[in-house]
Amino acid sequence: MPNPTAAMLVIGDEILSGRTRDANMHYLAGEFTKHGVDLREVRIVSDDRPAIVAALNALRDAHDLVVTSGGIGPTHDDITADCVAEAFGVGIDVRADARAVLEAHYERQGTQINEARLRMARIPDGATLIDNPVSAAPGFSLGNVHVMAGVPAIFQAMVASLLPHVTGGQPLLSQNLRIQRGEGDIAGPLRVLAEEFDDLQFGSYPFQKDGAFGANIVIRGTDGARIDAAMARLSAAFPE
Amino acid sequence: MPNPTAAMLVIGDEILSGRTRDANMHYLAGEFTKHGVDLREVRIVSDDRPAIVAALNALRDAHDLVVTSGGIGPTHDDITADCVAEAFGVGIDVRADARAVLEAHYERQGTQINEARLRMARIPDGATLIDNPVSAAPGFSLGNVHVMAGVPAIFQAMVASLLPHVTGGQPLLSQNLRIQRGEGDIAGPLRVLAEEFDDLQFGSYPFQKDGAFGANIVIRGTDGARIDAAMARLSAAFPE
Repeated sequence: MPNPTAAMLVIGDEILSGRTRDANMHYLAGEFTKHGVDLREVRIVSDDRPAIVAALNALRDAHDLVVTSGGIGPTHDDITADCVAEAFGVGIDVRADARAVLEAHYERQGTQINEARLRMARIPDGATLIDNPVSAAPGFSLGNVHVMAGVPAIFQAMVASLLPHVTGGQPLLSQNLRIQRGEGDIAGPLRVLAEEFDDLQFGSYPFQKDGAFGANIVIRGTDGARIDAAMARLSAAFPE
Repeated sequence: MPNPTAAMLVIGDEILSGRTRDANMHYLAGEFTKHGVDLREVRIVSDDRPAIVAALNALRDAHDLVVTSGGIGPTHDDITADCVAEAFGVGIDVRADARAVLEAHYERQGTQINEARLRMARIPDGATLIDNPVSAAPGFSLGNVHVMAGVPAIFQAMVASLLPHVTGGQPLLSQNLRIQRGEGDIAGPLRVLAEEFDDLQFGSYPFQKDGAFGANIVIRGTDGARIDAAMARLSAAFPE
């Protein structure tokens, strides 16, 4: 059976303005690769309701699962939950179980719950909560869409809550060969190898260092013995 | 006049697999912000022809300009130029001027041009070349789409070549206030301020450090005096 496919939607004005460099995408990509889920597409959009709704609908139709990051806090620019409700055509309101989780958390902290914090208990109808062990305010899953916080520590905790519920495939294995030759010298033999080992994926990632060109050739697949065989042939073609 | 809007398309298996953390998106976002171009959306797709063509067409219709990163080297997985030709419905072939640039470069290096390297002279009909001072192989512009290499040093040089040709708007200015309070305490006053200063954008980026919660509040706009005024009000509402 092929691995399930996934997409990620980052709601991130701070990434689009260049203020912040993304961390969640990189984290999720690594976790999915280990778990045998193929991350096929990432979209980053701003805090713009029509843009978020359109992206949600495009991605949930095209992939087995979708993870979103960001926009579920208490401030006026946190509109992800409302966008998910709109995308699915369901209602949204403060939900008793989410409210109880928040109230217990703030009581422990000696903090008052207020109108802004109550926004974080607004959950689309039919969704299942995702546990937030860091700051209580839950994420949620609706259909194949999993809605998570943007703060990296919370995002990572929510991914850990989600993964056991995702039926992954075989983990994608990879090996890397660093070749100190221009990609133009590597390309011909690499194409021949890629055609022969057509059950594997061959990627060529050029670099330039101290004026010299080279490339990292990455061979990926689910069968370690096949990767070993291809890597042996590649190493023989480009001895150090 | 409103600032032009832009999108970026990253062709990046290596980012989707978690192998590499993106650098070009972060760089472009910062350059566009300084230049007065609003980066509204980023998509990252794999080396998959239908996915690249669909993303190109969606983004070039929706935005004033599109920058792509990756997939224009000499190896079999470099398919961006062919995808751009398909998206625009134009032909593609080795072009004399691009070939001449490559031949001169490899002659200087004492390297042979070969079939793989010639792939980098394949340019869609009607495109204008983008100079590559690092490794010669050019990028190109076709319509509102600007096609650049994925290697960060080359990508950055190509962005520098492009920007003088892009009519930017007013640079987006920003100021940041770090507030050591939970976002739930900040949200109410912040919403009031955002409604009063509706010509500015207010972003709240929560963090968690050593068990304490806080948020960076970023106020963005093109009028520095207005940002000063809003920031003074925000600071008064949350004294240290």
